Amino acid sequence: MAEQKNRQFKLAARPVGMVKPSDFEFTVGPVPEPGPGEVLVQVQYISLDPAMRGWMNEGRSYIRPVELGDVMRANGAGRVVASNDPSIAVGDYVTGLTGVQEYAVLAAKSAIKVNPKLAPLPRYLGVLGMTGMTAYFGLLDVGQPQPGDTVVVSAAAGAVGSVVGQIAKIKGCRAVGIAGGAGKCRAVTEEFGFDAAIDYKHEDVRRKLREHCPNGINVYFDNVGGPILEAALANLARKARVVLCGAISQYNATPDQLTGPRNYMSLLVNRARMEGFIVFDYAPRYGEAVRDMAGWLKEGRLKAREDIVEGLENFPSALLKLFTGENLGKLVLRVADE
Amino acid sequence: MAEQKNRQFKLAARPVGMVKPSDFEFTVGPVPEPGPGEVLVQVQYISLDPAMRGWMNEGRSYIRPVELGDVMRANGAGRVVASNDPSIAVGDYVTGLTGVQEYAVLAAKSAIKVNPKLAPLPRYLGVLGMTGMTAYFGLLDVGQPQPGDTVVVSAAAGAVGSVVGQIAKIKGCRAVGIAGGAGKCRAVTEEFGFDAAIDYKHEDVRRKLREHCPNGINVYFDNVGGPILEAALANLARKARVVLCGAISQYNATPDQLTGPRNYMSLLVNRARMEGFIVFDYAPRYGEAVRDMAGWLKEGRLKAREDIVEGLENFPSALLKLFTGENLGKLVLRVADE
Repeated sequence: MAEQKNRQFKLAARPVGMVKPSDFEFTVGPVPEPGPGEVLVQVQYISLDPAMRGWMNEGRSYIRPVELGDVMRANGAGRVVASNDPSIAVGDYVTGLTGVQEYAVLAAKSAIKVNPKLAPLPRYLGVLGMTGMTAYFGLLDVGQPQPGDTVVVSAAAGAVGSVVGQIAKIKGCRAVGIAGGAGKCRAVTEEFGFDAAIDYKHEDVRRKLREHCPNGINVYFDNVGGPILEAALANLARKARVVLCGAISQYNATPDQLTGPRNYMSLLVNRARMEGFIVFDYAPRYGEAVRDMAGWLKEGRLKAREDIVEGLENFPSALLKLFTGENLGKLVLRVADE
Repeated sequence: MAEQKNRQFKLAARPVGMVKPSDFEFTVGPVPEPGPGEVLVQVQYISLDPAMRGWMNEGRSYIRPVELGDVMRANGAGRVVASNDPSIAVGDYVTGLTGVQEYAVLAAKSAIKVNPKLAPLPRYLGVLGMTGMTAYFGLLDVGQPQPGDTVVVSAAAGAVGSVVGQIAKIKGCRAVGIAGGAGKCRAVTEEFGFDAAIDYKHEDVRRKLREHCPNGINVYFDNVGGPILEAALANLARKARVVLCGAISQYNATPDQLTGPRNYMSLLVNRARMEGFIVFDYAPRYGEAVRDMAGWLKEGRLKAREDIVEGLENFPSALLKLFTGENLGKLVLRVADE
């Protein structure tokens, strides 16, 4: 183990506008030693999430920013190769905030044990992980969909959006997805089973929403912000719920490029609300969500799709795929063989 | 009666940007005859409200627009001078959607009987009328303030804002008001009893909110939109409620001048919500609110202030006072002697 090297990506600069490879520094260091109550994990998969862009910024948010020179924060999954805690054994598989590196030390109590025999390891970063939890609690707890409601989701071919639409269908709602390009729209309806898809790159989203949601939108689950949020606000039903999950169109904007929804007063006219949430707040209820999601996966009512990029060294370019809209489903980086 | 003339203001043009006197036409016509189930009201007071600006626009909203050539819609109070309905007698006083005119026909069942011996007539357009209902249900039902919460109100010297802050105090909250100019700020703290006032014309609202709300804003009641809404969003406490009551800074904007809150993602970071409401939805519960408000008035815990402009002919310039921020308290036009 002592001869083993740990390849890492550290935050080298706070990005201005679009994140770029030079914002990270690739380094090689020694494999760390776990202290008391800690485990050493050989990371096999790293989750790539839009939220990571926010963690790179300075300033107050729901989580402290990554400091310059620190390993870039990320969720990861891997195998325990050393343990100083009786609750986790060598050979166990866990997920946790490993960061973008090959070997990570985790506090045993912050590591979540998972079973790769029940589901492929990357799925614990997707549908059965933070992504799935985000879709589940955001839609059900914040969005409060009722059977018969029309639920609209942006970034519908993405990791969270594709799951939101499927849960909406399971709960007896109509699901309309917004995605970029014909291929993604096909996946939204054919693979993920939404009732309709709108291609924002080639269609007038506002008009298409009116067409697909003749009685208005009851729940809008927003991952993108910008003009698509405005198109949804223009089509709300009375007492609609707008769930703020993300705003990927804004994450790489400089302060002067930020835009707010100019028609936010649609919330007043329609007696509607717009509400944000942070998935970490639901940690005490993750078990309930995982039980539901695993059951739906088993019954074939929920389809998981991972988009796997090979090799730690490709981290910066893989992360960029999120912001250029190239991924379909959950974007995961494979760092080591299982 | 037949010789009596009815002076009226009709909508002559849909305003572009700031409303101007030429958007109205002053006409003189015959006094109308009430039909079956209707009453004829001699209007004595007309309520001037920011919402009237919205009613002048074309397009779908919570209420149909005033048509070109129609008498301008307004709430009014006056004396019944003819009645074709047994529930209302000649000599009764009522409020209702009289429009901007001297004589109005109302359906008896849409007229609300009021007693000028219990409170001055204009007060039934203010604290005991739609304005008071808006403050009461917007704050208590949408804002859900808890004792100890910090409640921030914009347009705090205005008709609705001044009442919101006073109800917040009655409910055991801290109240911070935002208003324009030293005189209004003095009224906010000294007359209406807020804990603090911020003068948006001469102070940095964002910084002052941070100072006056060290634990963040729990309820923000917004009447203005624009940069003040952004300043409030920048200072939310976790799980804050932003009540959308109005956006007076936006009402006279042309579509290309409209702005949305650029930092709306503060709702996500703070797990907060922004919610709109329409006071008319609470009609079945007005009685409950009037009982509370009348009680607080009697106990001296709630102060009502009306800003009365004389003469129907001054309607256009009086309405403009709302948008130039010249009024303090409830703006009412006196049309006839009591």
